[in-house]
Amino acid sequence: METCDLDRAKMSLMNPKVIREKVLERTIDETAMKAVEHCLKEWIETVWDRDEMQDPRCKWCSSGLSCSRCTMGPCRIIPERNRDRGVCGADADLIVARNLLDTLATGAASHSDHGREIVETLLLVGKGETNDYMITDRKKLFALAEEYNIPTNREAIEVAHDLALAYLEEFGTVKGEIELTRRAPTATHAIWEETGILPRSVDREIVEAMHRIQMGVGAHYGNILLHGLRTALADGWGGSMMATEVSDVLFGTPVPCESQINLAVVKEDMVNISLHGHNPMLSEMIVNAAEDEAMQKRARDAGAAGINLVGLCCTGNELLMRKGIPMAGNHFNQELVIATGALEAMVVDYQCIFPSLPRTASCFHTKIISTSPKAKIPGSYYMEFEPSTARETAEAIVRTAIDNFKLRDPEKVFIPGKPVAVQAGFSVEAITAALGGTLQPLVDAIAAGKIRGAVGIVGCNNPRIKHDYGHVTLSKELIKNDILCVETGCAAVASGKAGLLTPDAAFLAGDGLKSICKAVGIPPVLHMGSCVDCSRILVLLAALGNTLGVGIHQLPVAGAAPEWYSQKAVAIGSYFVASGVYTVLGPMPHISGSPAVVDLLTNGLEGIVKAKFAVEPDPVKAAELIIAHIEEKRKALGI
Amino acid sequence: METCDLDRAKMSLMNPKVIREKVLERTIDETAMKAVEHCLKEWIETVWDRDEMQDPRCKWCSSGLSCSRCTMGPCRIIPERNRDRGVCGADADLIVARNLLDTLATGAASHSDHGREIVETLLLVGKGETNDYMITDRKKLFALAEEYNIPTNREAIEVAHDLALAYLEEFGTVKGEIELTRRAPTATHAIWEETGILPRSVDREIVEAMHRIQMGVGAHYGNILLHGLRTALADGWGGSMMATEVSDVLFGTPVPCESQINLAVVKEDMVNISLHGHNPMLSEMIVNAAEDEAMQKRARDAGAAGINLVGLCCTGNELLMRKGIPMAGNHFNQELVIATGALEAMVVDYQCIFPSLPRTASCFHTKIISTSPKAKIPGSYYMEFEPSTARETAEAIVRTAIDNFKLRDPEKVFIPGKPVAVQAGFSVEAITAALGGTLQPLVDAIAAGKIRGAVGIVGCNNPRIKHDYGHVTLSKELIKNDILCVETGCAAVASGKAGLLTPDAAFLAGDGLKSICKAVGIPPVLHMGSCVDCSRILVLLAALGNTLGVGIHQLPVAGAAPEWYSQKAVAIGSYFVASGVYTVLGPMPHISGSPAVVDLLTNGLEGIVKAKFAVEPDPVKAAELIIAHIEEKRKALGI
Repeated sequence: METCDLDRAKMSLMNPKVIREKVLERTIDETAMKAVEHCLKEWIETVWDRDEMQDPRCKWCSSGLSCSRCTMGPCRIIPERNRDRGVCGADADLIVARNLLDTLATGAASHSDHGREIVETLLLVGKGETNDYMITDRKKLFALAEEYNIPTNREAIEVAHDLALAYLEEFGTVKGEIELTRRAPTATHAIWEETGILPRSVDREIVEAMHRIQMGVGAHYGNILLHGLRTALADGWGGSMMATEVSDVLFGTPVPCESQINLAVVKEDMVNISLHGHNPMLSEMIVNAAEDEAMQKRARDAGAAGINLVGLCCTGNELLMRKGIPMAGNHFNQELVIATGALEAMVVDYQCIFPSLPRTASCFHTKIISTSPKAKIPGSYYMEFEPSTARETAEAIVRTAIDNFKLRDPEKVFIPGKPVAVQAGFSVEAITAALGGTLQPLVDAIAAGKIRGAVGIVGCNNPRIKHDYGHVTLSKELIKNDILCVETGCAAVASGKAGLLTPDAAFLAGDGLKSICKAVGIPPVLHMGSCVDCSRILVLLAALGNTLGVGIHQLPVAGAAPEWYSQKAVAIGSYFVASGVYTVLGPMPHISGSPAVVDLLTNGLEGIVKAKFAVEPDPVKAAELIIAHIEEKRKALGI
Repeated sequence: METCDLDRAKMSLMNPKVIREKVLERTIDETAMKAVEHCLKEWIETVWDRDEMQDPRCKWCSSGLSCSRCTMGPCRIIPERNRDRGVCGADADLIVARNLLDTLATGAASHSDHGREIVETLLLVGKGETNDYMITDRKKLFALAEEYNIPTNREAIEVAHDLALAYLEEFGTVKGEIELTRRAPTATHAIWEETGILPRSVDREIVEAMHRIQMGVGAHYGNILLHGLRTALADGWGGSMMATEVSDVLFGTPVPCESQINLAVVKEDMVNISLHGHNPMLSEMIVNAAEDEAMQKRARDAGAAGINLVGLCCTGNELLMRKGIPMAGNHFNQELVIATGALEAMVVDYQCIFPSLPRTASCFHTKIISTSPKAKIPGSYYMEFEPSTARETAEAIVRTAIDNFKLRDPEKVFIPGKPVAVQAGFSVEAITAALGGTLQPLVDAIAAGKIRGAVGIVGCNNPRIKHDYGHVTLSKELIKNDILCVETGCAAVASGKAGLLTPDAAFLAGDGLKSICKAVGIPPVLHMGSCVDCSRILVLLAALGNTLGVGIHQLPVAGAAPEWYSQKAVAIGSYFVASGVYTVLGPMPHISGSPAVVDLLTNGLEGIVKAKFAVEPDPVKAAELIIAHIEEKRKALGI
């Protein structure tokens, strides 16, 4: 089949040894290993093949030293050829910093524009203009409203209306300060004020970031990157935090739930629909639509045993956290789930959707259904989602999938292995409840040294790191050393597939953490949600800081993004560091061309925001860095 | 001097013939020719030297086929090496479109963030929180307020307060539509609604643009570029238009004024201060401070005959339009004015400031004074500007310049040639007044064929095109063919230096245009302001369309950017085209790697917004394209 070819070195794939080596290089996800092998044998192109095709990489782009922002360029910094400056006069530091700020602004915009859509849906509910959405967590709504001094002695719908408008003002220019930043400990907030990086509004900081990368505006790499931190804070304590909070109000605040994970959640005898992307708004409707008896009957009439929804990436995380929907996998599982041959439809909203998915799907009967006006995909079916007609669209999508069941080719079905059990749903509220209604037991356990500290592990998959190896190895190393892991996004999914998201995994933890896990009945690695839900980690850190009366930078905590690839991860890492959290990245950003930028991020920031980045692709070494950091922070706290 | 070296082929510069050839290749600005020759002889690096150093360019960056947006990359599309897709699966069309949208968003953000600062200053006035700024054009303020149904039967300061808040809402999410788009003819507005590109807010469209370039969001090049048009409209009919309107309210709506232009406006016996950048807020204060008798005396005491302010780029245009301040030149004059050796200070705000200016200045006594927190420049003096202490900062800057006069080395002074006379100040209001209070005479002249049409010539300088040659040649060709030119930014400055901005230049026009110019007493090329003032061209087009009862796309008009380089120019060109104006670019954007993108922009858009781009570096050929287009539009109108 023309579209299923691998574009390089095909002949070598006739050699089983080569295939076996590639599989071992590519992933540690056991079902993915089988699926990768299957794809290699069947010449179905995957992300790893494209990664190989792209070698060797451009050394200037890799190190951030290319600039094609204006048509005086493109320019490159090549000192050995006397190219020390671009045509405009920008040097290596400036070119690298501008590129990085652009990347960060992209990530902050992604989270925040997602947040805006969720808040606008709350406004729709508040105006009584939708029957498809409703207030699910009234208690949370009222608590959020009180932060804004919105009167709560009235109907939830009225409160929702006013809260939505208050949140939308956080995107505008008039207000001048994001209220949610007040959740941070006083000491942390004071650092932001003193260094001039307290964000004024979500959109404003992003737009100012873009202004600063215009030729002839930002010229000092440090000044540019400080604005990057401000923009990142506007994401973490603004756009992302609103996305999380309002999603909880609309769809329910997660509580611990059990489910299954990996490619084997796809079921041979059922109509399989995967829900992929980042926004729960449509997928929640699809869950409702699929439960409808008429739909179930339609599926049975089509010869299937029923309808099986499976999650992917962060839309999957949203559904796993709130509904216990099984999870097919993370970023690098997105093509492999199509390669099971048993997927009737993959519904995508936006973010981290490989634009080549329709090409992958063309090898099978699978329909890729794109739904967002922001993310139309050539070769996909487009069924536009709008909040006002959400249920209707959801039903049409489920029907399309069911009707596609008959086109499945049983000979192409290849579902590898068995699913693994997971426990998810650890919102801050759920963690607090599990601890008996207050975080004090966690603080006590940390003070007593039973738990040495906590680490937020977040981010993506990246072909530079063997799939899931970075996440899983780091998590195992940390829990073994009595460090609690709280995870989101692809990191949480990787831990799930590796069996770390169950209370039973406590046997892998050190004695201290093990005892706490057993006493409370929680896994040593807590799934806190999707990547916008990194804001939950911020809320948890703020609560710990406030409980202890210290700034976040004083806590024995760290962040890690062992397999990050995305612009969003740059924003997340930056708001972690700007919030005082030492953060270790796996892959190196495209900044090595500027030793000054590297030094600022991995050293100088400590003097500004009391935290910094480190880069360490080897997760065992990353764990060592983190453990040393946590012990240092413990020492400073005198615990 | 170490910092004054040229980094390449120095020996060839010992050859006068090589120098002469380079001068002739580089510019047609007569004072600049002498200055370039001087710089080459003295080994003072300029933009053209850096342009040569950067050759050969990366062919992938040049054609838009590189992507280093995420750390799965960097990637390049190299079909001959089987690299048809990036690691994420993005093909050439997608990579090119994402890069272009990023560029456009940068430009839109620049104009609009500038607009936001101006509107915030109006709010400060409205709140009575500044003594440095005031309402200068009360009539315009009230007219603007009426567009928003703001009551005007009260104090100007109260009206200013409410208008500022109404304008700031145009940056926010709540309102959902930019009121100023209603200025467009009904037919034009209808196109925006039908095609879904009516902008909702300034910031929102920019942030959504950034969301769409995140990996796994925008996947269809056409869908991405349509959002680019929407973002551009938010700039042209939003951020830029507010910047212009409020600048008029605060500093006065321009009326025709006379002044001088080119490098020779620098005076050997005076303290010379150049005002460079784009925002009139500080520079207006410097004008006031320099007029102060105490400052004049200080200058005389320092041995100078007085203080001589000269403009550069668009800060210069703002001052020329409103105060008749002499203009030293456009983008590529910024280093040459330093090379006169007679500049005591160059004050910069932001945009189009070469980050290497302090390096240039280090060859002389000149102090580069940066003033914006968004644009700190290594090696410059930083005197932070805030609206609340504007006058104070302005005075400190003028004092610094005066005190620097004594450090000038007379042996290094080289002021080439003589200044040229210009007439500027052609706001839409001024044009209307010159025509007797209505645009009808212009419409009648167009209908009668005395004027065949009008062309907005805008944009920058770019080493791809000989400095000023593109602007001046195009302007001359068009007026010769009875086409009125309205110009902004570097284009207007180029025409000024070439003598086209005087009523006497009518002798270069065809008989029809000449007769109108002589009857009305205007130049055949009208200086309409800075590059944010391209919004004035939109207002003029809207007024013409409304007078004739047609959409902008039906008018016998066009746009051109013969020497553009900047991200802002991408936004301007795009809002011209989205508004229905056929627009001819000189330099090719970095898009040639995607024939589909090229075809959409130069062909397909015609079916969507009834206008399209063309690319033609030769200004004579560009004039032919424009003349043919205008005649076609005339025919369709039956005139």
